[in-house]
Amino acid sequence: MSMNNDPIESLTRMLAKLPSLGPRSAKRIVLNLLQEKDTLMRPLAAQIIETAENVHECKICGNIDVQNPCHICQNDQRQTKTLCVVANVADLWAMERARSFKGQYHVLGGVLSALDGITPQDLKIGSLLTKLETEIEEIIFALPATVDGQSTAHYVAEKIKKSAPDIKITQLAHGVPMGGELDYLDEGTLMTALKSRSNL
Amino acid sequence: MSMNNDPIESLTRMLAKLPSLGPRSAKRIVLNLLQEKDTLMRPLAAQIIETAENVHECKICGNIDVQNPCHICQNDQRQTKTLCVVANVADLWAMERARSFKGQYHVLGGVLSALDGITPQDLKIGSLLTKLETEIEEIIFALPATVDGQSTAHYVAEKIKKSAPDIKITQLAHGVPMGGELDYLDEGTLMTALKSRSNL
Repeated sequence: MSMNNDPIESLTRMLAKLPSLGPRSAKRIVLNLLQEKDTLMRPLAAQIIETAENVHECKICGNIDVQNPCHICQNDQRQTKTLCVVANVADLWAMERARSFKGQYHVLGGVLSALDGITPQDLKIGSLLTKLETEIEEIIFALPATVDGQSTAHYVAEKIKKSAPDIKITQLAHGVPMGGELDYLDEGTLMTALKSRSNL
Repeated sequence: MSMNNDPIESLTRMLAKLPSLGPRSAKRIVLNLLQEKDTLMRPLAAQIIETAENVHECKICGNIDVQNPCHICQNDQRQTKTLCVVANVADLWAMERARSFKGQYHVLGGVLSALDGITPQDLKIGSLLTKLETEIEEIIFALPATVDGQSTAHYVAEKIKKSAPDIKITQLAHGVPMGGELDYLDEGTLMTALKSRSNL
């Protein structure tokens, strides 16, 4: 656009950088907001500010919450013998939605990646190792089933084994997703699913 | 999520209502914002407020701009004999990107739709008809090539013919889009393109 409407373009550019948005969808959103200034646009700005003020990273696990420590770390109903290592907060929330893990979490803050230049120093590995001094009996890796995710799991598992050889280290099972059609699955998943086949 | 993090959920719900976003992409955005509070989240809120304050609907054509009348209506380099009728501001901007129309615009504010309950009273038809008293010689309909768009064009064209029978009324050509593979085109477009075929 060769228009001299700077605030519109600035806002469009900012929105376009957000995940799952591009220049076109950002512009549609800006137009939508401008059509509902008082009912949508200003309330959204207020809500963004309120959320920024009140939500913080949990100093124990790295989750984000209005409480610090977060409601999971504060919940004394949860057992403290298993620790689930996730790459990021979105994955932690995905685990919580599955409602089957009742232990503690540790958010690594990403996975090792040569391509993105993410090294062990960029991940919260040190603070994970200090947690081993508590009553933890098992560490479950719930990292992405990618090359980077798996090499991160192996790297961190080696570190854990060195400093606490008695801790059980596991990872999520790989296989055919529930409801998944074999026809649409990649060969890697099928190979893994075949290798880890179970008795019927 | 059964989490008691209200501001996160409120913000996610607000974002999920925006065009091209859903619950999942909204949550990804909230997480992304929270990870960059000072560099992204607070600046975004400030930019939304600034844009809401400074951008207004043009009282002449219905475009949105920091100026009112907008820079198109204020531009005395543009000719005033042709008026292009568009459904909304996004379509006006699309026309401007094509850089070939040099006249004035009129934003209808939508198209007639039985399904969405949009009647002539919901569109800016009255203010369009009052513009006919000026020096306009041609009205170009650039409405969507949908059933609703076309019946809106016909409805408004009839109104114009009644109050100003000498004005030329045209609409955008329909046909094969540039670069379009015939194989992927719907039959309606192909039929229209064949009917409106031109000499080579």
